[in-house]
Amino acid sequence: MNKIKETIRKISVIDQGFVNKTQERLDNLTKPLGSLGRLEELAKQICGITGKTNPSVENKVIFTLAADHGVTEEGVSAFPKEVTAQMVYNFLNGGAGINVLANHTGARVVVVDIGVASDLKPDKKLIIKKAGYGTKNMARCPAMIREEAIKAIETGIEIFEEELNKGIDIIGIGEMGIGNTTAASAMTAVFTKEPIENITGRGAGIDDKSLKNKIEIIKKALAVNKPDADDPIDVLAKVGGFEIGGLCGIILAAASHKIPVVIDGFISGAAALIAFKIEPKTKDYMIAAHSSVESGHKYILKHIGLKPLLDLNLRLGEGTGAALGIGLAEAAIKILTQMATFKSAGVSEKKKQDPIL
Amino acid sequence: MNKIKETIRKISVIDQGFVNKTQERLDNLTKPLGSLGRLEELAKQICGITGKTNPSVENKVIFTLAADHGVTEEGVSAFPKEVTAQMVYNFLNGGAGINVLANHTGARVVVVDIGVASDLKPDKKLIIKKAGYGTKNMARCPAMIREEAIKAIETGIEIFEEELNKGIDIIGIGEMGIGNTTAASAMTAVFTKEPIENITGRGAGIDDKSLKNKIEIIKKALAVNKPDADDPIDVLAKVGGFEIGGLCGIILAAASHKIPVVIDGFISGAAALIAFKIEPKTKDYMIAAHSSVESGHKYILKHIGLKPLLDLNLRLGEGTGAALGIGLAEAAIKILTQMATFKSAGVSEKKKQDPIL
Repeated sequence: MNKIKETIRKISVIDQGFVNKTQERLDNLTKPLGSLGRLEELAKQICGITGKTNPSVENKVIFTLAADHGVTEEGVSAFPKEVTAQMVYNFLNGGAGINVLANHTGARVVVVDIGVASDLKPDKKLIIKKAGYGTKNMARCPAMIREEAIKAIETGIEIFEEELNKGIDIIGIGEMGIGNTTAASAMTAVFTKEPIENITGRGAGIDDKSLKNKIEIIKKALAVNKPDADDPIDVLAKVGGFEIGGLCGIILAAASHKIPVVIDGFISGAAALIAFKIEPKTKDYMIAAHSSVESGHKYILKHIGLKPLLDLNLRLGEGTGAALGIGLAEAAIKILTQMATFKSAGVSEKKKQDPIL
Repeated sequence: MNKIKETIRKISVIDQGFVNKTQERLDNLTKPLGSLGRLEELAKQICGITGKTNPSVENKVIFTLAADHGVTEEGVSAFPKEVTAQMVYNFLNGGAGINVLANHTGARVVVVDIGVASDLKPDKKLIIKKAGYGTKNMARCPAMIREEAIKAIETGIEIFEEELNKGIDIIGIGEMGIGNTTAASAMTAVFTKEPIENITGRGAGIDDKSLKNKIEIIKKALAVNKPDADDPIDVLAKVGGFEIGGLCGIILAAASHKIPVVIDGFISGAAALIAFKIEPKTKDYMIAAHSSVESGHKYILKHIGLKPLLDLNLRLGEGTGAALGIGLAEAAIKILTQMATFKSAGVSEKKKQDPIL
């Protein structure tokens, strides 16, 4: 717990001075005031986070954390449980969606086994840092004990800090874990108090009958465990997952080191929710990449107060939406740092308005 | 007019066989069915357009056409008229928003003077192909005579075909022209029959008083010229502009050569509207990059039947939104062509749904 407390202590509010300086600079660039909309907002946010007028977006890293979920034995997912491990190998071989989109964006993918239920084959591209071997079935008992949830968060902090040594300017977070939309829905229910039906989706593609079952299982998990909304670690432990805890740790660590975090979809959103509940200042370090098809996601974004950049009907996870979001963040910083000013380009500024009527 | 007719004759419906083949391939990739949402739709559209299962997105070109508008003498714009020419020099020097975002996307920018009111300094990066020296003041007379409008479209066709020799896989279209939101609003009014107030925005940033004036000027232009909604070239001539006609020609030419066209914002949208009215089959070749802040834009997209990819509150033009849209199109094709299949990656497919209840 000390590592978490220490990390939180280092998280400060973002520097409004740099936000204001960035606004001034944007207003001198050869374009109508504010005409690059949310790209300008992004540039300001990133300058405020980093405390730099000219932040680098060279080193882009996507953390994709994998873990298993005991609740899969209740038939909540469209895919068999072994797909978690199979997809980790796919990440390592470069064949998954996240590999393709991270390459497109120029980001490297850090693949972590933080809680896969089986022992994976060692691979120099795979970080094995298990906080556990999959969660327990939350419909019957807590998914994790409190110490495991804490360990998951601390593991996330460690993963971030080890990668930081290699250079990080901006990160994206993503995950792989068959059954993890069930965990994310349960967590969302606790914090937002929305009816389970509103925040439970089809995950990887379950049918109506399975969706009905999934909703019942989530209700059961909440009734059995009674997670305490005022204690985010209790919620994470009882109905969360190892990868969700790890991503929460990564967010806390990134914020403590003034690094912007691009949040992927629903499960990454659940991790962001825990981080926000642990330390609300983390919100200003978060960039919501996109609006997921999973119905619970918009409630998470609303609860934290984030506005997604993209609305492309994505629901893959892995960090795929975050990869696209990082591309927009990079575009925003390039606008700030590479465009000419009215003065340097010899372009006339906006005239005083007095139309010839 | 022969060049236009000839171009239209070569535009065919997109190949549904390739759309279906692409769907099949997408469904075998290691991701839940349809989970990459609009990226998957984009991939299908591009395969249908190009008639290829493995289309290239290497050669990306953004056409930025510049022209002046006589209606600026009515005080409809926040910037003085000379900014059109000044911004062309900014494009050539690489300091504008479009330069930065095109570089980010890996696209080259083709800058064309198709109707700037002054003679620009020759530059090897500038294509000077004037269809006229700015339009006339549409509040008093037709902006162009019919022959000029036709010449503008034909010039666009020529520009595209000359660049095609250098290699083009996908294009974006954009523009620069002080006063051209006034033209775009007038054109939108003719085709959509929406009240002028609903489709007239602040352009580069006029105040309330100037906006009221702009609306009155557009009403006057429509009353004076009575453009015929059933004759798109009449509309283009009377209340359009040279760059809008040129972009329309580029769309027609691109469609005739099976090249996808990423449409930027409001003014590019007005060009798309003319192309669509001339030949409705062009619609399937269009990709709407984003939803502009300019209120008329959504009516254009609705009228053609396009759904924008991005909603970032952009209103700069130049092709900036198109550059970001091209990035998404490229990502979509990479997903299609670079991801592993369930079989190649050894990942289990979706199970038959029979949850353990």
